[in-house]
Amino acid sequence: MTAQQVPGIETLCAPDAMAPYLVDWRGQQRGRGRMVVLPRSVEEVVRVVKWCGERGIPIVPQGGNTSLVGGSVPDASGQAVLLSLRKLDAIVKVDPQSNLVVAQAGAILQDIQQAAAQANRLFPLSLAAEGSCTIGGNLSTNAGGTAVLQYGNARELCLGLEVVLPDGTVLSDLAGLRKDNTGINLRHLFIGAEGTLGIITAAALRLYALPRAKVTSFAAVKDPQAAIALLSLATEMVGSGLTAFELMSRSCVESVHRRFAELPAVFSPVPAYQVLVEISDQDDEAHANRRLLGLMECALERGIIDNATVATSTAQSRRFWAVRERVAEAQNPNLKHDITLPVERIARFMAQAEQQILAACPGAQIIVVGHVGDGNLHYNVEPPPGTESAALPALKTEIEQLVYALVAAHGGSISAEHGIGRQKVKALQQYKAAPMLQTMRSIKSVLDPAGLMNPGVVFESAT
Amino acid sequence: MTAQQVPGIETLCAPDAMAPYLVDWRGQQRGRGRMVVLPRSVEEVVRVVKWCGERGIPIVPQGGNTSLVGGSVPDASGQAVLLSLRKLDAIVKVDPQSNLVVAQAGAILQDIQQAAAQANRLFPLSLAAEGSCTIGGNLSTNAGGTAVLQYGNARELCLGLEVVLPDGTVLSDLAGLRKDNTGINLRHLFIGAEGTLGIITAAALRLYALPRAKVTSFAAVKDPQAAIALLSLATEMVGSGLTAFELMSRSCVESVHRRFAELPAVFSPVPAYQVLVEISDQDDEAHANRRLLGLMECALERGIIDNATVATSTAQSRRFWAVRERVAEAQNPNLKHDITLPVERIARFMAQAEQQILAACPGAQIIVVGHVGDGNLHYNVEPPPGTESAALPALKTEIEQLVYALVAAHGGSISAEHGIGRQKVKALQQYKAAPMLQTMRSIKSVLDPAGLMNPGVVFESAT
Repeated sequence: MTAQQVPGIETLCAPDAMAPYLVDWRGQQRGRGRMVVLPRSVEEVVRVVKWCGERGIPIVPQGGNTSLVGGSVPDASGQAVLLSLRKLDAIVKVDPQSNLVVAQAGAILQDIQQAAAQANRLFPLSLAAEGSCTIGGNLSTNAGGTAVLQYGNARELCLGLEVVLPDGTVLSDLAGLRKDNTGINLRHLFIGAEGTLGIITAAALRLYALPRAKVTSFAAVKDPQAAIALLSLATEMVGSGLTAFELMSRSCVESVHRRFAELPAVFSPVPAYQVLVEISDQDDEAHANRRLLGLMECALERGIIDNATVATSTAQSRRFWAVRERVAEAQNPNLKHDITLPVERIARFMAQAEQQILAACPGAQIIVVGHVGDGNLHYNVEPPPGTESAALPALKTEIEQLVYALVAAHGGSISAEHGIGRQKVKALQQYKAAPMLQTMRSIKSVLDPAGLMNPGVVFESAT
Repeated sequence: MTAQQVPGIETLCAPDAMAPYLVDWRGQQRGRGRMVVLPRSVEEVVRVVKWCGERGIPIVPQGGNTSLVGGSVPDASGQAVLLSLRKLDAIVKVDPQSNLVVAQAGAILQDIQQAAAQANRLFPLSLAAEGSCTIGGNLSTNAGGTAVLQYGNARELCLGLEVVLPDGTVLSDLAGLRKDNTGINLRHLFIGAEGTLGIITAAALRLYALPRAKVTSFAAVKDPQAAIALLSLATEMVGSGLTAFELMSRSCVESVHRRFAELPAVFSPVPAYQVLVEISDQDDEAHANRRLLGLMECALERGIIDNATVATSTAQSRRFWAVRERVAEAQNPNLKHDITLPVERIARFMAQAEQQILAACPGAQIIVVGHVGDGNLHYNVEPPPGTESAALPALKTEIEQLVYALVAAHGGSISAEHGIGRQKVKALQQYKAAPMLQTMRSIKSVLDPAGLMNPGVVFESAT
């Protein structure tokens, strides 16, 4: 094979230069690639796509390469062109009157947040990787995060896309209209499709009012059912002012306090569960505080919660959030599950899952952190110390099957916000209803008949 | 042709019995049909669809038959089966903990609103036809209405669908999860597709907190630009508490006062434009009133508005809303346009459109009522008294072309919330980008290869 390149497009071919693009950030998924291309305009993306299409070469689109499921690195075949969107990183327009920002796919999420704030607006999408993930990747994976409860997923924040189809056709809709009922909506096909139907090159995104005050508290609860009762009460008392509701198990909180000495325990002893509750307010901080205190007092009176601490300063509020945000760094359990349950099923699911896991693996530690307000649990399991590493793969499979089967039994989802990538392709085949899978394949076959877009991701590889 | 029927399905064949299903509610669109079928379960819908599919018989799905663009009545050929969803009208589940309601397609919108309210929750979709339109129709047309500013269109309120595809396959996803990233999202294909890809038979819908207080005011402004400035100020001061922002031109307000004596003018003389502003609040009415008064005082101080009246009672608030809601009854202009503009373009569009229309048709009256918060204008034109009815069709075409061309020039949409139906099929071909139309056709061809689903709606008829 001769080392062909797409004429006029910045290309990396040297192994050292390509290396960072060919492995996921956790180092778990390593692939190979023919070359890395770095187009600087939608026209250059079109040229790459056509060049690859004419030669039957697969394309793996990549943004910030922060996928947790191996969705943005190629397979081991070395056939694919890695198409990085990082050089398409302009924030094209910030329009506070229309509550709109238009950005290219490679724009970093945090840069978009900041551009919005400078225009006195909020772009609410917020997640751990926001300093390096790109909006194109956020949309391709329909990213979630901590603000979904009030503002929705990346999908709900998107008002339009520019997409390059596998045949080089450009679909462009960046006007950012809130109402546009002119036929079949195509945008939603590409949001969450993980680059398997086309390449998102730009997006029109929805802005919100910047809250005038945000206040935070931790509430101690004895079990998940109590957390759900607090959620219901908060919904009724605070409505759309409730902007975060994050559940953490004792094991999870203790791991953060052990690892980060600057984050002392909020409650002593650490309760079975604690919930981070954030209220945003358009009046002022005093009003926000009264609302949050009122909520917690009412919850205490009704016996829903056992204790509560409201942050009395911005610094303390930041420390509360840090407890939540540092979970990922504080522990790295072997068995992770990103799942959604119907909210009213969460307590039952957690009780049943714990029982089954401890039966299958006595001594295992269950570590739960969840965006409970939207039903999303990061349900992690650490086998007991001393578990032999040779036993891990089988144990992992057993517990994953157990968790997913229980999720399915309760009408939940085996991927809440991380997507399918390469890692969950088999699980998707097992747990998604056959008519849904068949319809997905039909759509894929008509938009990407040659199967060149991100092969092996979401859909099973043809080979 | 023998009078065949689908075995075991309630069927109407008598002309009198069929008549109400074959004409739109404004009496503008009359069609003919082979028969009307009234299935009572999703299984019965599947049987109808398969029966028709085997015989190559087109199907026109119909909910409450309140389309404003002729989307729910058959063409004149008499070939189609009219499939009414009205007998599938169960509200299956109301779950306040998960903020979820599950309803069959034929459930009346108002019944769903009431079921939600009984569970202390809000189903926010609200529009003039809510007493007779069905949720299946609302979703098939992605209905808008007066609450889109805060809560979104029907699309944003939908968390899952049950759909019968043209081959009889049932796609079912009624768990109502807020986060579910398991492959290509199929639901959004059917929302807004106007029954051209399949038949929505049930939906999972999102509920919100019931506001504790709602307060309403009218503000007088001198021009649309001032209204947009008030919208920006309200966004910043009230945030998500701003739940309605409706602009009405003088001509529009005067027509209501003339027609309904019980609704006297709020301002005298009637200003060039007035805006209905509604604030929802989770504290109480006193707090809501303070916020609304604070907003109006600030707007007066800054010279954005010329006058404001805040309703001091629920009865007065209802009268304010009645002024807005009775616009459709108060006047029935000959030339109607349901359009969206980027919010920051509204003022320029309105100035240019008025100038061009008055040049083309001196003496024409322009009547504007708009959900300005989401860019949606109902931009209506009444030719001067004495215009000969023979001249109307040509005038209508001229003004429509003029309005749509200007909408397109400003990056707007020729159908904001009413959809395409039969009436805007030609306009869609003219104003939607060719790659979008081509991709829509590709999707249609793979899901409905025989073209039996609601032919002549959205897509051009094959014949």
